[in-house]
Amino acid sequence: MRVSLTIKQNRSIINMRIKKLNTLLVVVTLCFAYSPVCANAGGGIINAKYYGIQEGIDNTPVLIKALEACKAQNASKLIIPKGTYGIYPERAHGAYRHIPNNDDGIKRIVFLLDGFKNFEIDGQGSKFICHGQMIPFDLKNSKNIKISNLSVDWDKPFFFQAEVVAVHPGQNAFDLAVFRECNYEIHGDELIFTNKKSKGENDWLNMAPPAQEDVRWEQNINWNIWFDPKTKAPVFNVEEAARLHTWNTKLNKPARAEELGEDLVRLYDATNRLPDVGWVLIIKGNLTKNRLSPAIHITNCKDIIIENTTVYHSSGIALIVDRTENVTLNKFNVLLPPGSGRLVSTTADATHFVNCKGLIKFDSCVFENMLDDATNVHGVYARVIDAVGDYTLGMGRGHSQQQGFVFAEKGDKIKLLNRLSLEPYATLTVESVKNINEYYFEATFREKVKDMVQPESVADNISWQPDVDMRNCIVRRNRSRSILISTAGDVVIDHNKFLDCTYAGVVIPGFVDIWYESGPVKNVIIRNNLFEDMGLGGGNAPIIDIAANINKKVSPPFYFHKNIIFQNNTINTFGRILVRAKSLENFQFKGNKINKSKNYPVVAPENGAAFVFDRCKDILIEKNDYNWGDTATIKAYNTTGMIIRGNKNIEQR
Amino acid sequence: MRVSLTIKQNRSIINMRIKKLNTLLVVVTLCFAYSPVCANAGGGIINAKYYGIQEGIDNTPVLIKALEACKAQNASKLIIPKGTYGIYPERAHGAYRHIPNNDDGIKRIVFLLDGFKNFEIDGQGSKFICHGQMIPFDLKNSKNIKISNLSVDWDKPFFFQAEVVAVHPGQNAFDLAVFRECNYEIHGDELIFTNKKSKGENDWLNMAPPAQEDVRWEQNINWNIWFDPKTKAPVFNVEEAARLHTWNTKLNKPARAEELGEDLVRLYDATNRLPDVGWVLIIKGNLTKNRLSPAIHITNCKDIIIENTTVYHSSGIALIVDRTENVTLNKFNVLLPPGSGRLVSTTADATHFVNCKGLIKFDSCVFENMLDDATNVHGVYARVIDAVGDYTLGMGRGHSQQQGFVFAEKGDKIKLLNRLSLEPYATLTVESVKNINEYYFEATFREKVKDMVQPESVADNISWQPDVDMRNCIVRRNRSRSILISTAGDVVIDHNKFLDCTYAGVVIPGFVDIWYESGPVKNVIIRNNLFEDMGLGGGNAPIIDIAANINKKVSPPFYFHKNIIFQNNTINTFGRILVRAKSLENFQFKGNKINKSKNYPVVAPENGAAFVFDRCKDILIEKNDYNWGDTATIKAYNTTGMIIRGNKNIEQR
Repeated sequence: MRVSLTIKQNRSIINMRIKKLNTLLVVVTLCFAYSPVCANAGGGIINAKYYGIQEGIDNTPVLIKALEACKAQNASKLIIPKGTYGIYPERAHGAYRHIPNNDDGIKRIVFLLDGFKNFEIDGQGSKFICHGQMIPFDLKNSKNIKISNLSVDWDKPFFFQAEVVAVHPGQNAFDLAVFRECNYEIHGDELIFTNKKSKGENDWLNMAPPAQEDVRWEQNINWNIWFDPKTKAPVFNVEEAARLHTWNTKLNKPARAEELGEDLVRLYDATNRLPDVGWVLIIKGNLTKNRLSPAIHITNCKDIIIENTTVYHSSGIALIVDRTENVTLNKFNVLLPPGSGRLVSTTADATHFVNCKGLIKFDSCVFENMLDDATNVHGVYARVIDAVGDYTLGMGRGHSQQQGFVFAEKGDKIKLLNRLSLEPYATLTVESVKNINEYYFEATFREKVKDMVQPESVADNISWQPDVDMRNCIVRRNRSRSILISTAGDVVIDHNKFLDCTYAGVVIPGFVDIWYESGPVKNVIIRNNLFEDMGLGGGNAPIIDIAANINKKVSPPFYFHKNIIFQNNTINTFGRILVRAKSLENFQFKGNKINKSKNYPVVAPENGAAFVFDRCKDILIEKNDYNWGDTATIKAYNTTGMIIRGNKNIEQR
Repeated sequence: MRVSLTIKQNRSIINMRIKKLNTLLVVVTLCFAYSPVCANAGGGIINAKYYGIQEGIDNTPVLIKALEACKAQNASKLIIPKGTYGIYPERAHGAYRHIPNNDDGIKRIVFLLDGFKNFEIDGQGSKFICHGQMIPFDLKNSKNIKISNLSVDWDKPFFFQAEVVAVHPGQNAFDLAVFRECNYEIHGDELIFTNKKSKGENDWLNMAPPAQEDVRWEQNINWNIWFDPKTKAPVFNVEEAARLHTWNTKLNKPARAEELGEDLVRLYDATNRLPDVGWVLIIKGNLTKNRLSPAIHITNCKDIIIENTTVYHSSGIALIVDRTENVTLNKFNVLLPPGSGRLVSTTADATHFVNCKGLIKFDSCVFENMLDDATNVHGVYARVIDAVGDYTLGMGRGHSQQQGFVFAEKGDKIKLLNRLSLEPYATLTVESVKNINEYYFEATFREKVKDMVQPESVADNISWQPDVDMRNCIVRRNRSRSILISTAGDVVIDHNKFLDCTYAGVVIPGFVDIWYESGPVKNVIIRNNLFEDMGLGGGNAPIIDIAANINKKVSPPFYFHKNIIFQNNTINTFGRILVRAKSLENFQFKGNKINKSKNYPVVAPENGAAFVFDRCKDILIEKNDYNWGDTATIKAYNTTGMIIRGNKNIEQR
């Protein structure tokens, strides 16, 4: 029998030797016995088949051993023969991870790439099915890594899904048929969902600290949203009104749950507006600690490519990247599992980039049905606490999901700004950073800071501001925004389709609030895109929202954001507002075509403005074709340099 | 002005130089400028005074700098000038800690001694006031360390305390006056206690992930106990009956809380038996995750002395020690803070020793008002999962509070036993241990294990079994047992007073249950002690309880425990049972004097036995003086070698 070897490149001695072999036994013997040769040679290809990968088992130990061999032999590629493979947390690597914008903790990791170089994982179309709390892919301190041709899913989702099968207005109640993949219990009067049932009826009343192998989590109903199974999108215009709460503040009483039968639950007083029969309830759980298992975590890496890869589910962000240079996403998707009946993919963003640099490139990606944005590219504002030396600032990480985050290292340029005005007042160069704990660190600068640092200051790392190139992508049916962009790098958003999200299409934020996500943009081009049915959640969501949460006293000539071009886009919308911008210098809105949505009724305030500018400068609105049915109006406060020309149905009032 | 230097030894060049100095300024300059000299010399004494320690500030950075200097200069002692010093978590060391029998997590640490040798901290009578979640003392990988002359407290306790000021039987309700140190809120209908109030009335309804500097915890009412302010002990004989629950299973409805006024709360349906006016409610919080801030954590150390040191409070165990050789506690106390009005000291054990060896010595310690035992000395049963190689077992840590625990290292002797019978069947020597994650590890042995290992096996590390010597100590007014002893080392318990605990005086356990605390005893002498008013919690608690949770089919000639002498003790008791023992070989109960308690009424079943033996061998009950008022009876099942002679009022039935 000739062995079908999947080695494509012949870069090493070991490969040439392998080609001569013709029995599986000899190949296996070689892989183990000749590993010193492999290690010396490097560049070889390892096939997980020879480490025992197979369907129907826990492949975690297999993959850990195969990756250990890749590291030891300096292999260039790990090949996974096409299959559907279960991976489990019990025998996975355990490591404490600070993961920005997700929940920190000890994580169970299967594909742990720490200190890898010039390495590829080729899944050949394989699907990995995770079980429980785990991170399938965790990359750190690695360079030139490619992940391709695979997908990731979980056996059961971390969210609760249930369809409304009856409503009882007289009782302020509705009945839910629980989705087959979800477990739930009624604790007292409360609906709880969980990965596995309690052992006994009232087990949850007892003190029973579980062994690790029996880890059980519980979530309550407080974080929730309604989806419409007909559109597979969030239900139109009810996001707040129909929200469930464990405590109903309007009625001043708790919600109550009652089990009517197996997988059939009645909820009383959970909402102030009853849902419609047929709506599907999605619950993420508690208001915090609901982002426990991202699918791919990348930190302190360089030159990462993810290609032909799909994440079907994760608890938290599907792909979270921090302090990494150059990331290419080519056909990286976040999708509903086909035929699954689920209405949600990941329970937070599809992708998220924190303090990165180089180029973040998206090409031909599809992101659908997330419970948060398709992407969010931002820095981190560190809080300045005090000067602890002439050259040293005591600093803190502002948000609970930024703890332990590497804010800066030697050589980085840091901008100090006032958190109320957002006005920068100094640029410094980092000499050293001493981490005292996950919150507090001391940064020493080349410049004297003691007498110069102002009260209420925050710091932004301007050395880590990536360029972003997003093209040919589709974002659809997600909660929240399509994309958020907060980077001083060059940004091009071109030929994408942004469809059916609950808030704005593009948000360019400017806040030093609880999230502490930094910074202003300097060069953003958004062109040739389709925006359709933004603002499903209700309210009056703009297509592009350029925010700057500055003190009311802060006025021009300071402008927070600069240079945004919004051009040749098509907007099909049921809302009236198109652009909201604050503290922005140089904005061009030109050649766009605006139509009324065919899918949803109008939700817009009477006589609302289509453009609102606050403390802006140099605004050009030119050659836009406004076919929404009335005349679009522009409101501008404390704004100079407005040019409005050649538009159809747009005028300043 | 001559500086008063507190240096007692002149072992180093630096000390001799210091003696010649006569101004504070020069001393300070020297301490910093000459540090390389200090580092070379070693053995010096550092006074925290010169690092800026003072009352009224956060002394954490001061103490960290002083300890860094001690380490760098190889100092022999850190002196803290007498004072009351605040220490805070914000700028403390941050490190993830696995702490057995407490809750793991990132801990904030002030006195971090990692890799110290021959070093003493002399507090000179100082008191350290902690704030929030932190571990003031954390020692690891250190040798010959002494901590003396200091005390530790927290500004606010981690428990909730409130006095019953009224009861309303018609409404199944009672009113609580909340202790001045405690914060609480009513969330919906639920009483919550917390370290700091929410920012707004309904802040708890919102998603507001806090920054680390603003960390806020909440606890519910589920873990609770009643104290009697007149006795300062747990309320007599009501422990279970008057327990509070958020969900009342008897009435099948939730408990409800209502705020009547500032620090005045009415609770409805929280108990099935209303408390008396004047009782004090103590709540630890949730059933799990309520042991977050031990006061002193010691791991992987040798030769530790703690002297003239008092812990007034901690969340969890005051002193938790694991994998450490030789610990001496001389006047180490856990006490109520004088004049504080608090009725509880630490919220778990006073001391706790896991997989230690050498000698654990207690002399002249006082342990009072803990919510758990005065001490618990035990090993850890690791679960055997499977043989993953001829010489290698895949193993798991059984309890959630044993995760990451170092079960064994190279050279340790391991005993395998069946978890249902507790019968050992093999002794192995560890060759290496590979930790895969905090739960799972692989241990390789010198012996072949693959075909020998039996199903349902656990492992006990017999190389780490300490001797225990406890004398002249007082244990009083705590919940749970006075002491637990599970070590194969030599144990002497001599001249102690064990007073007013809610269960047995001495427990010698034998369980492979959820706690996974190992092992049998081989040589225990308990003599000349006073046991008074054990079993306050109700039921029929023995003075000494020797347990072995073995399968019913397991019979002699296998005996789990061996060689226990209980001699010349005085027992003043309101209960009838004195001794309960299972699977014990060689027990002597002699020369003890048993009187009826003068403090509490009798709580004992009619005609209950005073001695119960099950599957035991060689029992001697001799020359005891039983003055309880009737005749003590002995019940023995499947027990051989009983000798009963020379007793007053004791007979076998």
